[in-house]
Amino acid sequence: EHRSLPWLVVELLGRLLASPIFFNRRIYLLEEAFRIEYDTFGELKVPSDKYYGAQTVRSTMNFKIGGVSERMPVQVIRAFGILKRAAAEVNQDYGLDPKIASAIVKAANEVAEGKLNDHFPLVVWQTGSGTQTNMNVNEVISNRAIEIMGGQLGSKKPVHPNDHVNKSQSSNDTFPTAMHIAAAQEVNEVLLPGLKKLQNALEAKSKEFSEIIKIGRTHTQDAVPLTLGQEFSGYVQQIKYGVARIESTMPRVYQLAAGGTAVGTGLNTRIGFAEKVAAKVAELTGLPFVTAPNKFEALAAHDALVELSGAMNTVACSLMKIANDIRFLGSGPRSGLGELILPENEPGSSIMPGKVNPTQCEAVTMVAAQVMGNHVAVTVGGSNGHFELNVFKPMMIKNVLNSARLLGDVCVSFTDNCVVGIQANTDRINKLMSESLMLVTALNPHIGYDKAAKIAKTAHKEGTTLKEAAIKLGILTSDQFDQWVKPKDMLGPQ
Amino acid sequence: EHRSLPWLVVELLGRLLASPIFFNRRIYLLEEAFRIEYDTFGELKVPSDKYYGAQTVRSTMNFKIGGVSERMPVQVIRAFGILKRAAAEVNQDYGLDPKIASAIVKAANEVAEGKLNDHFPLVVWQTGSGTQTNMNVNEVISNRAIEIMGGQLGSKKPVHPNDHVNKSQSSNDTFPTAMHIAAAQEVNEVLLPGLKKLQNALEAKSKEFSEIIKIGRTHTQDAVPLTLGQEFSGYVQQIKYGVARIESTMPRVYQLAAGGTAVGTGLNTRIGFAEKVAAKVAELTGLPFVTAPNKFEALAAHDALVELSGAMNTVACSLMKIANDIRFLGSGPRSGLGELILPENEPGSSIMPGKVNPTQCEAVTMVAAQVMGNHVAVTVGGSNGHFELNVFKPMMIKNVLNSARLLGDVCVSFTDNCVVGIQANTDRINKLMSESLMLVTALNPHIGYDKAAKIAKTAHKEGTTLKEAAIKLGILTSDQFDQWVKPKDMLGPQ
Amino acid sequence: EHRSLPWLVVELLGRLLASPIFFNRRIYLLEEAFRIEYDTFGELKVPSDKYYGAQTVRSTMNFKIGGVSERMPVQVIRAFGILKRAAAEVNQDYGLDPKIASAIVKAANEVAEGKLNDHFPLVVWQTGSGTQTNMNVNEVISNRAIEIMGGQLGSKKPVHPNDHVNKSQSSNDTFPTAMHIAAAQEVNEVLLPGLKKLQNALEAKSKEFSEIIKIGRTHTQDAVPLTLGQEFSGYVQQIKYGVARIESTMPRVYQLAAGGTAVGTGLNTRIGFAEKVAAKVAELTGLPFVTAPNKFEALAAHDALVELSGAMNTVACSLMKIANDIRFLGSGPRSGLGELILPENEPGSSIMPGKVNPTQCEAVTMVAAQVMGNHVAVTVGGSNGHFELNVFKPMMIKNVLNSARLLGDVCVSFTDNCVVGIQANTDRINKLMSESLMLVTALNPHIGYDKAAKIAKTAHKEGTTLKEAAIKLGILTSDQFDQWVKPKDMLGPQ
Amino acid sequence: EHRSLPWLVVELLGRLLASPIFFNRRIYLLEEAFRIEYDTFGELKVPSDKYYGAQTVRSTMNFKIGGVSERMPVQVIRAFGILKRAAAEVNQDYGLDPKIASAIVKAANEVAEGKLNDHFPLVVWQTGSGTQTNMNVNEVISNRAIEIMGGQLGSKKPVHPNDHVNKSQSSNDTFPTAMHIAAAQEVNEVLLPGLKKLQNALEAKSKEFSEIIKIGRTHTQDAVPLTLGQEFSGYVQQIKYGVARIESTMPRVYQLAAGGTAVGTGLNTRIGFAEKVAAKVAELTGLPFVTAPNKFEALAAHDALVELSGAMNTVACSLMKIANDIRFLGSGPRSGLGELILPENEPGSSIMPGKVNPTQCEAVTMVAAQVMGNHVAVTVGGSNGHFELNVFKPMMIKNVLNSARLLGDVCVSFTDNCVVGIQANTDRINKLMSESLMLVTALNPHIGYDKAAKIAKTAHKEGTTLKEAAIKLGILTSDQFDQWVKPKDMLGPQ
Repeated sequence: EHRSLPWLVVELLGRLLASPIFFNRRIYLLEEAFRIEYDTFGELKVPSDKYYGAQTVRSTMNFKIGGVSERMPVQVIRAFGILKRAAAEVNQDYGLDPKIASAIVKAANEVAEGKLNDHFPLVVWQTGSGTQTNMNVNEVISNRAIEIMGGQLGSKKPVHPNDHVNKSQSSNDTFPTAMHIAAAQEVNEVLLPGLKKLQNALEAKSKEFSEIIKIGRTHTQDAVPLTLGQEFSGYVQQIKYGVARIESTMPRVYQLAAGGTAVGTGLNTRIGFAEKVAAKVAELTGLPFVTAPNKFEALAAHDALVELSGAMNTVACSLMKIANDIRFLGSGPRSGLGELILPENEPGSSIMPGKVNPTQCEAVTMVAAQVMGNHVAVTVGGSNGHFELNVFKPMMIKNVLNSARLLGDVCVSFTDNCVVGIQANTDRINKLMSESLMLVTALNPHIGYDKAAKIAKTAHKEGTTLKEAAIKLGILTSDQFDQWVKPKDMLGPQ
Repeated sequence: EHRSLPWLVVELLGRLLASPIFFNRRIYLLEEAFRIEYDTFGELKVPSDKYYGAQTVRSTMNFKIGGVSERMPVQVIRAFGILKRAAAEVNQDYGLDPKIASAIVKAANEVAEGKLNDHFPLVVWQTGSGTQTNMNVNEVISNRAIEIMGGQLGSKKPVHPNDHVNKSQSSNDTFPTAMHIAAAQEVNEVLLPGLKKLQNALEAKSKEFSEIIKIGRTHTQDAVPLTLGQEFSGYVQQIKYGVARIESTMPRVYQLAAGGTAVGTGLNTRIGFAEKVAAKVAELTGLPFVTAPNKFEALAAHDALVELSGAMNTVACSLMKIANDIRFLGSGPRSGLGELILPENEPGSSIMPGKVNPTQCEAVTMVAAQVMGNHVAVTVGGSNGHFELNVFKPMMIKNVLNSARLLGDVCVSFTDNCVVGIQANTDRINKLMSESLMLVTALNPHIGYDKAAKIAKTAHKEGTTLKEAAIKLGILTSDQFDQWVKPKDMLGPQ
Repeated sequence: EHRSLPWLVVELLGRLLASPIFFNRRIYLLEEAFRIEYDTFGELKVPSDKYYGAQTVRSTMNFKIGGVSERMPVQVIRAFGILKRAAAEVNQDYGLDPKIASAIVKAANEVAEGKLNDHFPLVVWQTGSGTQTNMNVNEVISNRAIEIMGGQLGSKKPVHPNDHVNKSQSSNDTFPTAMHIAAAQEVNEVLLPGLKKLQNALEAKSKEFSEIIKIGRTHTQDAVPLTLGQEFSGYVQQIKYGVARIESTMPRVYQLAAGGTAVGTGLNTRIGFAEKVAAKVAELTGLPFVTAPNKFEALAAHDALVELSGAMNTVACSLMKIANDIRFLGSGPRSGLGELILPENEPGSSIMPGKVNPTQCEAVTMVAAQVMGNHVAVTVGGSNGHFELNVFKPMMIKNVLNSARLLGDVCVSFTDNCVVGIQANTDRINKLMSESLMLVTALNPHIGYDKAAKIAKTAHKEGTTLKEAAIKLGILTSDQFDQWVKPKDMLGPQ
Repeated sequence: EHRSLPWLVVELLGRLLASPIFFNRRIYLLEEAFRIEYDTFGELKVPSDKYYGAQTVRSTMNFKIGGVSERMPVQVIRAFGILKRAAAEVNQDYGLDPKIASAIVKAANEVAEGKLNDHFPLVVWQTGSGTQTNMNVNEVISNRAIEIMGGQLGSKKPVHPNDHVNKSQSSNDTFPTAMHIAAAQEVNEVLLPGLKKLQNALEAKSKEFSEIIKIGRTHTQDAVPLTLGQEFSGYVQQIKYGVARIESTMPRVYQLAAGGTAVGTGLNTRIGFAEKVAAKVAELTGLPFVTAPNKFEALAAHDALVELSGAMNTVACSLMKIANDIRFLGSGPRSGLGELILPENEPGSSIMPGKVNPTQCEAVTMVAAQVMGNHVAVTVGGSNGHFELNVFKPMMIKNVLNSARLLGDVCVSFTDNCVVGIQANTDRINKLMSESLMLVTALNPHIGYDKAAKIAKTAHKEGTTLKEAAIKLGILTSDQFDQWVKPKDMLGPQ
């Protein structure tokens, strides 16, 4: 490939600077570059290239818990961007200087679009109200707005993080609002599309397999037949209901706490603020958000998220069941059930052709277990609110978002890399089905229970087919057997 | 009181026979009284005074797990009575001898009414399909029907447990049907009435307390004021939504598996059987049961119960929060928060007058913890179905019914013995509220933040009221303070 | 059988009185028989034939939650009997009237032996300290002691429930003491014996199966061989470690709170009381109880029970794994894995000979799920203690005892009714093993990877054995194959 | 500050290249730079600057689940580095070319030291055996070793990822080995030090507060007194036992699966390999690792991690209790319990001086809830192993490591930022204690219960102190009261 010289220089430098030893040095240099900010506790160094301020830095010092992977989910940060923009627009209606409002809207929009994710270093293990993240957002938006307006970072002029960005708001109502926005978006953008994609793929398989008659299994043991399509129709129903379950919880997730401020009374807001903000958020997201009818509940409890988590927990149970079935039905190639042929996605053993590890099923079941665990964390947090405020907020939303994302993603992965490629091993299915002793049931009306039982017992004891046993015992002719024992007639009520 | 001699004799004998030493002897005698029944495994002794048969006895021998308190919940037994009656009536439409049908209906009705509870000795820790309980039901109904028709117990004539009582049915569809009937009834008869009673009582308190202004608490710390009525309105909202949560799961609980038989295909049933049975059950219970649209899902998964359990788990979180608040707000009498006066229901310490242990709150929070645990058991069971049958059925329904019953009962107990009797300790509430440093917020518009902060800091440091501090600092007159610092104006948006 | 006339009369009367209609009448009569007792809240009717008193009756009125199956576990009641006896004996050392002490000891002993179980009607859903059950115990023992001493029930003379039976005690230290005694006994009498029995049975099977080479399965898919004995040795190890896990938690369960009284300080006890009571309990139970080194922790937290529950939760995981394996390995008879033949314990389907439902495995896995759920309930309760007292005590011990009992019982049931009767289906095992494509691994050193792979791929594609493919491809002779492909050499390191 | 020109240029370029727009471009450029590698599924592009190979890239394509924050924990990667180094050294003993062994050791060491973390892009939601991460490790080490030996990346020569790096190993035994190494290290480096630090800090406070007598609280209500030191001693005991609980589970965590290879038999390893590898790992880590006595259990079950997680769950309960107590005891400043003064770590409200949000307690309780949830995920995963392999491995270790890290970190944060700075509010404590009606207990021996009760009731009703009531009622003189009512004498047994 041909590249111009300047680009090669740039690439060279890029690699150089990206190399560990150099990168660390660079980090060091950048760390030397800071500005001094103050809060009521004193002086703090803020990195020059960051928009956040003193309160954010202080939180990083006080909460060294869990490291980078424990940061506040970006979905919450982006939801805050939406909320702060909505609040600024409504505040302008109530008298906020349009120039300031406009700069806040622009900066908040950048947050909402995820452009400033690097400026949110705080972990979820902070204050349980998420106050420090709200202040992180306020600081970033105010500094970015100041920059837009040509001011000096950290000066709090002309855009003050509290007085302007946080106007008519409190951490106590904004954080739960951001929780609900983030959860609703993740549900609508990741979880529900993932579930529906899986539902469609399973439905297509159910139709594709509608004529394949197979042995049923109850108690993991041989039972009467059904079609493979019928078996898959059960999975379809589970996922379809999963969608319904999630959706039935959303009315309460679409209710926003904004306007409740510190304790739910709405002190320091204006009449109508709550409703207008909810309408604005609905407009910005395209989701049917409304203001919560009771702000006291909306701050002090997060039952709506426990409920949503409970619906996801049910979906996890469904997925665990389906993925378990598929890996067992696809087990083999020689010594398992072997009714399904699962797609090979990665090299199996270099020794054993045909060994397909059901890796997608394993990802599904691991996710299911995680979602069940997340649900308990959400439950414990949700049950432990006190008085006017539940202070397990960051932990709760982290787990809810994690469950939604993992479930949605794994549905897509499972669909694309497994479900759509599942083939029926019809030879094996037919063999197992035709050998099944359960088919003897069909003979009862013709030869009576006792003779039928004799046939079945003989076949079981001697390891033959029912037909062989029936003929050997002289009870039936081959033709009679074929005429009366028709699995096809055993697939539904008469 | 006067009693006739014969009654006295009877009572005397009754007491004699009820006395432990005698009772045991009597049990021994009764145990000697048995009839011999057979099943395909051989001879078994069945107590003469019991309607159950060999398969039930065999189960008691094979599953000695947990003892009497682990028996199949009577709600399941009674639900089976309803189902068996419905099935007999529908079977009659399809040709079952009306005399047999009629006897089954009568016997099943006695089961449904709980009259034969003593004839169901099996524990839930049996086969995971509940087959043995289904057979227990079949045996009891057939023997009782035989008795009604003048036959001999154990003869299986003229009413056969399998051929007649279980006609067109399998354990695999009847047990889940009984699970849904039992769950739906417990929800409608115990859980929802309990929740609504509590909601009403909390709502009445919310109105009663609507004028009482009190200090708010966030992070367990002092915050801006709200009314006690507002605080209680949050609880009302939680319970109101709890009702909505339960109700939103019920459409899927009202779907019945009956008609799916062994694997969901409906083998050995008749077209229309499923729909007619569901309609009959709906008629008998007054609840909107319908036949499940997909019987494969209905046998192989119990997502609907996981979902219902999830809704109850959310209600448990709500109750934990409310009961915690009430016991903390009622803590004291001298060294707690002391804002609420809780009813005294039992002798407190013989030493300390005024010590009220919030025992009802404790029952509520213990129940909440149990429901959370039950929910995990239900979740684990619900996730582990395989192929055409989930075999955690008895365990799942035991936990679901336990949660519904405990939540419903504890709501009634909490309402009657605590909530309705809660009084506001207005002196204490006023004192705390008027001493609160948070009220200084109201001065900001009048004297500016800095002077307000000075007042608050002085009051905090010197342990005085804001007013005292304000006057001492010469910033305000007494009249000005009274005019500007009005908690009443801090209860909502402007 | 021959019985004398008097016995027949007695039996007749017994049956008569036991008949429902009569029984109810008798109950009614008995209910009319009550004595009046008082407590500080007023007059209450106490059934004449019960030893409990006013506080117990009051609790039944205030806590109508869950019904009979929710009663305080009898193990707790019996443990209280032991404790009260021990306390009386120690109190005598400190000056309690020997006649009173002696009567208390005798009455407490009857409680400890379970003779008075009918006198403990209270449910666990009461006050969270178990105070009402402690008072129930005090009332029963005092009344029974009064009876022994010839006094009048309810008179509190000469044996007072508080002053004598509860001497030097508080509910706050006696209830946790009874919790630990009950838990330790259930662990030692039910749980550990059950686990050890299962361990031994699995070990015997492991030895019995030590020469049977079978295909291994990873990811549920075919893998390299191992012996069936090796496979079972993994189960043995799990249960063996399960025993170790339970035992490693017991040192903290053997610590008793007695002597801490109301808040842990030991107010109103005597120096040495705590140590002497613990020693006495140890003597009475034969278990190494000691006094808790810190009584504040022993009242305010029940971490020791959370820990024990956690160990039982691990055992539940082990059992779930083992039971799942056994039912899958025993699946069939025709269309499953079919390597194990499980004992038939109850009639399978009347149609299909050979269908064995792995009902014992199902009981095991249901119990496992329940224990996992119980553990969450215990965890939530254990985490929510406040200040000097955890008030989730009755709920916690109910769940701990339930887990211990169910696990212990189900181990015995599983062992007796399943494990000891498991047979290897050696034909099937050999067939699956010899057909396995994985055996090709053994050829690598002799013919190289490429040719080995070619053999395996050909066999997989054409559905033949490796040997057939090898010969057909002309790579190996039959003798060479037999010489080089020896599963026996694949069972360990070289 | 002065910097030389070259450094300024470098910094300028660094900033330029780090700016989002440029960074993305650079990423694009780097992405263009790749090498082609093959696996049995075909051609794949591998980034030129990465050491990983085709199988790693394929996994990133097949498992797009959860994003960067869901990557395999670096602790697992580093543990793999230790294991691969140990295996190479042992393999050299068994004949591996010393030059190759030496290069592997060097490369593995870099992995162990965390220097190559950027080369491990895989998420935990992959195959449940962690095979892809094992291959990722093999690829990185082989390529890095190739580089060290002067070969060409991707050539697999002279160091083959499977034949050399993975020699005598399988994913099925290496991944669980890495799990145990990682868990043991995190426990020893983060969890236990954190707990011990907290224990020491609480112990110091317990001593510091040993003379401060305060009111006790049971049922959240006023009770008899204890010292603040005694109250804290309960916390000390909980944490001390927490350490013991963790340590008691470690013997089983120190057992390594290495040497079991594919199914536990040790096929393709050498006799002694397992023991030598464990010894080498022990040497490299300084921790007492040994080889697992039963490899079948070690691959097929992860009970040891469920057990460890259970111990951490107990610790979570302890921490929840302690943090709850501290925030309630520190509640106020005016309207709470106010007995403790918690350190201020960040600006409270700009309005209300003295408002300290107990933010560290909130982080602690959120972590506790998370650990409880993680524990359920671990439990579900641990219970669902099948046959020779548990395939929830990555999910399980992720949760175990997360719990260990969060608990350890939060203990340090809580200690440093809260516990060490806690002060007793002795004025408040004395006031509450001296006003307590419970002190009346001390008068019983002197004036009898009835008069004492009269004093208490009067004081409660009139809102006075006991002393005032006693004097007013003429029962005691002031001197008598002071002489007899001595809280100091109520702190222990007599």
